Amino acid sequence: MKPLRERAKMEYLECLFCQKKFPLNIFNPFCPDCGAPLLYFYPPQNKELYLDKENPLERALDFLPLNKVNLNLTLGEGNTPLIKLSGIMNQFNFPSLYAKNETTNPTYSFKDRGTAVALQKAVSLGIKNIGTVSTGNMAASTSAFGAKAGLKTMILLKEDTSREKLLSSAIHSPTLIKVKGDYGKLFYKSFSVGKSHRIYFMNSVDPFRIEGYKITGFEIFLHFNQKAPDYIVVPVSSGGHLIGLMRAFLDLKKQGLIQKTPTFVGVQAKGCSPIAQAFSSGYSRVKRIQKGRTIAHGISNPDPPGGNIVLQMIKENNGFIIDSTDKQISSAQKSLAQKEGIFCQASSAAALAGLYKLSSKTQFKPEDRIVLILTGSGLKAMEELSSMTFPLHKTSLPQLESLLNHHF
Amino acid sequence: MKPLRERAKMEYLECLFCQKKFPLNIFNPFCPDCGAPLLYFYPPQNKELYLDKENPLERALDFLPLNKVNLNLTLGEGNTPLIKLSGIMNQFNFPSLYAKNETTNPTYSFKDRGTAVALQKAVSLGIKNIGTVSTGNMAASTSAFGAKAGLKTMILLKEDTSREKLLSSAIHSPTLIKVKGDYGKLFYKSFSVGKSHRIYFMNSVDPFRIEGYKITGFEIFLHFNQKAPDYIVVPVSSGGHLIGLMRAFLDLKKQGLIQKTPTFVGVQAKGCSPIAQAFSSGYSRVKRIQKGRTIAHGISNPDPPGGNIVLQMIKENNGFIIDSTDKQISSAQKSLAQKEGIFCQASSAAALAGLYKLSSKTQFKPEDRIVLILTGSGLKAMEELSSMTFPLHKTSLPQLESLLNHHF
Repeated sequence: MKPLRERAKMEYLECLFCQKKFPLNIFNPFCPDCGAPLLYFYPPQNKELYLDKENPLERALDFLPLNKVNLNLTLGEGNTPLIKLSGIMNQFNFPSLYAKNETTNPTYSFKDRGTAVALQKAVSLGIKNIGTVSTGNMAASTSAFGAKAGLKTMILLKEDTSREKLLSSAIHSPTLIKVKGDYGKLFYKSFSVGKSHRIYFMNSVDPFRIEGYKITGFEIFLHFNQKAPDYIVVPVSSGGHLIGLMRAFLDLKKQGLIQKTPTFVGVQAKGCSPIAQAFSSGYSRVKRIQKGRTIAHGISNPDPPGGNIVLQMIKENNGFIIDSTDKQISSAQKSLAQKEGIFCQASSAAALAGLYKLSSKTQFKPEDRIVLILTGSGLKAMEELSSMTFPLHKTSLPQLESLLNHHF
Repeated sequence: MKPLRERAKMEYLECLFCQKKFPLNIFNPFCPDCGAPLLYFYPPQNKELYLDKENPLERALDFLPLNKVNLNLTLGEGNTPLIKLSGIMNQFNFPSLYAKNETTNPTYSFKDRGTAVALQKAVSLGIKNIGTVSTGNMAASTSAFGAKAGLKTMILLKEDTSREKLLSSAIHSPTLIKVKGDYGKLFYKSFSVGKSHRIYFMNSVDPFRIEGYKITGFEIFLHFNQKAPDYIVVPVSSGGHLIGLMRAFLDLKKQGLIQKTPTFVGVQAKGCSPIAQAFSSGYSRVKRIQKGRTIAHGISNPDPPGGNIVLQMIKENNGFIIDSTDKQISSAQKSLAQKEGIFCQASSAAALAGLYKLSSKTQFKPEDRIVLILTGSGLKAMEELSSMTFPLHKTSLPQLESLLNHHF
């Protein structure tokens, strides 16, 4: 049998640092020269968004590494709401502030955007086995999409992953393997076992996953009547999500559809902020930290594989990477729930916490439009609320009226 | 101050049984003669769906009890995916089968559809306090929308509601009151305290909530190029959801937009099936059962306030109310996750379990189109998976390759 990549139409991945192209090897998408994650290479072409299409992948097909979209593989991902955060705007005197609520995706996180495109690619290449290294949102997303497509799905997990965390993946019946040892090394190890067992590990900085994250950017562009907002603020862990969002607006600029990209702001939790640390020190390379300590587990990657790409792209595009404390993040999570009716994970609320910090350093213009990307549902990280206290009244049916008379 | 209902434009609610109209009293929407829940009365009018509108409430405005839609109050509810369930179709040789995935609403259940419309009404009437009697999806939905609108929200709870169940409401900071005593009586008591304290209790069969559920029906109609599907299968608890869905298609028929309504199939859990029992016995009135016993907590209402309306409308429209065992429901939940990548609550999976049962009694035509309504996310009822077992492999980094060699 011919290797899969030879059967596909010739496609290339490129290294941002070595500025070289390499033929697509979906089982090992890293630069043979410098080891950096490779990104999808598109030959120059005039592109447009197909506004009459309802499916977000079909709408953005020109900008995706796909020849067509197989609608049997979709779970209805995307087309998420963009909500004006009037309560928070008024409280803090912000200019126009919006949340792109990615928590309403089919598995309740932004990961579905990337999984959807990686899965389309896998099926188009005839791949039968997919996998990922994750304990959280990405595991559930990959398991769900794998189930829909009838593929075998393998999830490699940290040794200490709790049963509770596993359930939302396990319900889809993937193969679950707990692996003792360094989690960062497991990320790289997955590609070597993937290659030998023909399992396509669509991990956090997979080039097709990153292309899927672009679609969120296109939806924001369309929401604003084909204009870019002024700021996009997004939590950063491995870096894949931010890279995808930046690539979306760079694509639009290249096509002449916008004149100026938004200012991109990546937010990390202070307890696990290797990219923010490198950024504030002016380094061009991210230094691995020992261990992350933050309530925002979804963004606690001490060795982010996309970190160097994020740093380079943020510098080229005049963005920022900032950090927020757990206290600021918790407070932002409560504000979003209490003022805006949105219950997102602490990791998502980091976007709002980051905006608070940015607003102390940056003078927004009254006409500015700021978009926060809320990445995952609070329901997926209920342990974050374990210490939350709240008033709880108790009464009986006959005493209810009297309780209300006295207290309300 | 004038009473609210006099300040509003004159509106009426009607009793399906007494066939009488009553001026709207939002604090007590029950028939003064027979006690039945009242439904919204629309004067005869030519109506259309505004297809150019993105917001589902604006699109259906002619069919809603609202003069306009305040977009500041929306959380982006609706426009949920309709997904073809190819895996299950093929396995069971069903005709075209679809799931309307209501779990991707802003608080991850169909309740948001109804809350959105009831909230619009509340704000348009100048109401400052809203409430509900619920421990689950409706509490979270009402708390979230109340927070967005800046209203005070009161949630009345069963005495034994767990802290865990409360968190997804509590995060939005409503007033939470646990009430000792009969839960069915608490439902009716809420209206008397609501009236005296001017709290609008938008409970399960609230007439505005029910109108909100119609929008799901309109979206299905539009998805099928302005045709009705042949079957709509939906889990039934209080009855409000099914009543709303039936009203949507009856509205469309009245306007000449469809010739024939779908066959409506309501599904209850066998352990709590007062409406299904009345239906199969040919009774026109539902008899309260003592206590429901089912894993499908979301549909375990022993005294469904909309039960009699459901029975009457189902009979008039040649529908069915059937029941499914917990075993069938659990199995359906697994099928949806494993074949279709959708993780819904057991209560939602009852729709598929009901379809299995229906298929043993009904001969579907090959061209039939069946729609299941999946009502709430599995993430909201994780306790349902407490006894789930699944294989979990364990290895170490150096042994991973060898585990895969031996087992995969």
